[in-house]
Amino acid sequence: MPTPSFRYELRRVDPEQIRKLAHDTGFFTDAEIQVAEELARERLSKGGSSGYHFVMAEQDGRLIGYTCYGPIACTLFGFDIYWIAVQPDIQGRGVGHRLLEETERLIREAGGSRIYVETSQRLQYDGTRAFYKNEGYRLEAVITDFYAPGDGKVIFCKVLT
Amino acid sequence: MPTPSFRYELRRVDPEQIRKLAHDTGFFTDAEIQVAEELARERLSKGGSSGYHFVMAEQDGRLIGYTCYGPIACTLFGFDIYWIAVQPDIQGRGVGHRLLEETERLIREAGGSRIYVETSQRLQYDGTRAFYKNEGYRLEAVITDFYAPGDGKVIFCKVLT
Repeated sequence: MPTPSFRYELRRVDPEQIRKLAHDTGFFTDAEIQVAEELARERLSKGGSSGYHFVMAEQDGRLIGYTCYGPIACTLFGFDIYWIAVQPDIQGRGVGHRLLEETERLIREAGGSRIYVETSQRLQYDGTRAFYKNEGYRLEAVITDFYAPGDGKVIFCKVLT
Repeated sequence: MPTPSFRYELRRVDPEQIRKLAHDTGFFTDAEIQVAEELARERLSKGGSSGYHFVMAEQDGRLIGYTCYGPIACTLFGFDIYWIAVQPDIQGRGVGHRLLEETERLIREAGGSRIYVETSQRLQYDGTRAFYKNEGYRLEAVITDFYAPGDGKVIFCKVLT
């Protein structure tokens, strides 16, 4: 069982590391990987006012996973988790759970109580959806054909108590 | 019936004009008005790569309404309309319809075919929801308690044909 350490401030090398991690999972399109990297660059250049916050999980100095989250503008208690990714060679060993737990702790600390995550209806994301359900997220809405014809968006929500 | 002229490039004075217009409608919270202004500043500083596009409706040199829209990252055909606002003294005279029609034309031209707009469940937005329905937008999903307890988000979608 990996025992990651967490850090919350990005370093200059992180956008590149995040791009590589997102790529290595094999889960994301080029456009998605570019967005993941851009959010990290936004954070580096604008700091907290970017609205993007990060939890970086490391083991022996290696980035093994991360989340990117932030408050939803114009809502009282809403937060989005924009990204969660774990290195493929250590998936299924609890790192995603630890990352999500740490992210939820920080969101609660920041005054948030409703967390939203979005994913795709595609078969490829069966495991992702099962993961969220297992972590206490419930299906909130489905937007059909959102990403592409036949590929809807699934919105999950967890209410912190 | 006002006959607005449209322009699509923002000028230095527009973020301030948009802030004032959003404020004058009496419809938006301070936080929302700040976001409206920020999107205009993003557009001014980054141009088209900001992802925010504008339709500015003017009459006799006065800004009488505007929309802000853009492609949804990682979707094939999705566009969001982020903002639509019309000066309160000329509401109900077709300017909103003209603005929406022009925005839809530009989205179609840019390759978009699914347009999303989001609004609130609050009573105050009854007219807004009726407006979208009348313009061919159908209710796609409701996210309960999204903005605040008791104040859900309503997502409308129009599929261009």
